[in-house]
Amino acid sequence: MTERIKRLQQYMERQQLDAMLITSPKHVYYLTGFATNPHERLLALLLPKGEQARLLVPALDYEAAQTASSVASIHTHQDTDNAYEILGQMLPPALTTLGVEKDDLNVNRFEAIQAVASAARFVDIGLPLREMRAAKTSAEVASMKQAVRLVEEVLRAGVALVKPGVTEIELVAELEYQMKKLGAEGPSFDTMVLTGPKTALPHGSPDRRTVSEGEMIMFDLGVYAEGYASDITRTFAVGEVSEELKRIYDAVLQGNLRAIEAIRPGVSLGSLDRIARETIASAGYGPYFNHRLGHGLGMDVHEYPSVHGMNEDLTIEGMTFTVEPGVYVPGVGGVRIEDDVLVTASGVEVLTSFPKAFTTIGG
Amino acid sequence: MTERIKRLQQYMERQQLDAMLITSPKHVYYLTGFATNPHERLLALLLPKGEQARLLVPALDYEAAQTASSVASIHTHQDTDNAYEILGQMLPPALTTLGVEKDDLNVNRFEAIQAVASAARFVDIGLPLREMRAAKTSAEVASMKQAVRLVEEVLRAGVALVKPGVTEIELVAELEYQMKKLGAEGPSFDTMVLTGPKTALPHGSPDRRTVSEGEMIMFDLGVYAEGYASDITRTFAVGEVSEELKRIYDAVLQGNLRAIEAIRPGVSLGSLDRIARETIASAGYGPYFNHRLGHGLGMDVHEYPSVHGMNEDLTIEGMTFTVEPGVYVPGVGGVRIEDDVLVTASGVEVLTSFPKAFTTIGG
Repeated sequence: MTERIKRLQQYMERQQLDAMLITSPKHVYYLTGFATNPHERLLALLLPKGEQARLLVPALDYEAAQTASSVASIHTHQDTDNAYEILGQMLPPALTTLGVEKDDLNVNRFEAIQAVASAARFVDIGLPLREMRAAKTSAEVASMKQAVRLVEEVLRAGVALVKPGVTEIELVAELEYQMKKLGAEGPSFDTMVLTGPKTALPHGSPDRRTVSEGEMIMFDLGVYAEGYASDITRTFAVGEVSEELKRIYDAVLQGNLRAIEAIRPGVSLGSLDRIARETIASAGYGPYFNHRLGHGLGMDVHEYPSVHGMNEDLTIEGMTFTVEPGVYVPGVGGVRIEDDVLVTASGVEVLTSFPKAFTTIGG
Repeated sequence: MTERIKRLQQYMERQQLDAMLITSPKHVYYLTGFATNPHERLLALLLPKGEQARLLVPALDYEAAQTASSVASIHTHQDTDNAYEILGQMLPPALTTLGVEKDDLNVNRFEAIQAVASAARFVDIGLPLREMRAAKTSAEVASMKQAVRLVEEVLRAGVALVKPGVTEIELVAELEYQMKKLGAEGPSFDTMVLTGPKTALPHGSPDRRTVSEGEMIMFDLGVYAEGYASDITRTFAVGEVSEELKRIYDAVLQGNLRAIEAIRPGVSLGSLDRIARETIASAGYGPYFNHRLGHGLGMDVHEYPSVHGMNEDLTIEGMTFTVEPGVYVPGVGGVRIEDDVLVTASGVEVLTSFPKAFTTIGG
């Protein structure tokens, strides 16, 4: 935590900010170790240039903050106080440039901050936070591995229940039940099970459709564990399926494998997307891979970086993202195979380990 | 929908605004009937004073918007466009005062709007939207009744599984499984099951604690159906419990009943809270009822109005809110009984019908 605040202090020096004000509970947690949901109350971490960090919390959170926070200077406000006035008194006296989280701050709150801060300029500090979060520490990776371990156990339980006649929503309910039972903090997004022609809809919704022999079934699910998300997709054949569906499966699998092989520090994210896309195109399914290769994964299930063909940002050690090529042929069916990967010093570690060779289930 | 827009047009006249810009997807749905999750893309409903409403949607949403929206004038933007420039061209030329949703707009978006709007003044329009939403139409009430019907069926299924030795999280998992299975859109908040001394913690978390004979068990849960939330709490005895727990139960039940009896249009929300509080105090448990009586319920599970002792706003016909007194005695246990109510022309309709007389379960 202290290391993270130090890095923001350095950013502040470089950008010539007088102070930074962090107001999203997620980033207060990321920077101090203190997790809380303040609801409509004000929670703020103030980093004045060259001075100690200061935390402002609702009074009822004071003891919890003292216990959990790496920041020693903790101020409080009662519900009967004007929390912004107290914040104003905490700000450095000569303030010309204040960094705030413009994506995570609504206009009413921003105007309340403007009213107590004499700053002439308010600068967005989303970028340094996003970039810092992209490179995971070993503790963060350990939490992500736990989220992956849980979701793969959930997926195994769901797959075991597939048989002709089961509905999509029955399987979704079972998967989410297993998440709770196994101790996940919750799903990291709406659990998806699609069957038959619906597998060709990358954003379809599970309903009472039943799966039949000769169809594909697609599972896309994730959980939160220790504050970090997992996200996995596997697609299976139910009974014997057509040769075309097998060819589609193989094209997607090759795209997934080729892209993962290419991962190491310093390659562009766009190049990974292009490798998967060219592999799939060479099998004749290029036009049917109609979304990006993947997305960053961490405290949010979708975060920086976006893994698409136009993103020339380079991978760095500690980055975690999904690799999830898919092919969706209307009227025929679709396949997506999604892994979670970690960029390591020497290459890549695939966090997901659920088998991905073509598999027939439900027999 | 058209009626709602007309009421905002009248508000605009009274407040001398030149236009209103609605940017929260929930309120675009509420005002036009078009529901979408635009993710990071811009979605905006523009209401220029004295002119037709105009909708700006991502291009990929155009057909869905045409089908669902009551607003005929639909503009689109592609991902390669600057959506805010297009918005700027849609604005009335002489714009001095523009209403925006300051609670639902982040600073980056607000600055992008400021850059294309020549308005001198940006005024918050949260209040008229909040007030309009507080008076539900009969169609909205029908959706809420569906959400209540579902959650009560879920609760019945959960109660049937209570026996000594079952854990809190097993029951939570079962309740959320039933929500999915019965077709709810999802829980309206984190489902809560607390047992024994933990019932004295109004914000406790379910864990692997098992329930034993002689303890209370508290269920607090809700679902979304047709876009509207339900929210119910019931507390039961598992086997024979102490006389004190029975007295606590009776005090809370009397508080709940007396407050509900007093509901009709034109009474202050604070008076309802005070009636419940005085009833509970007269039974000797005043200091242990340490939260507000209830909260508005609708498209959000917590919305306007807040039902607390300092709120002198008056009830109006069509208002829906919770009535949920509770008593929490540390080391002994707690009881909360929560109903969802609708203010009618002649009085009150209690939407929840799950029995609330003292009940022993798990035998």
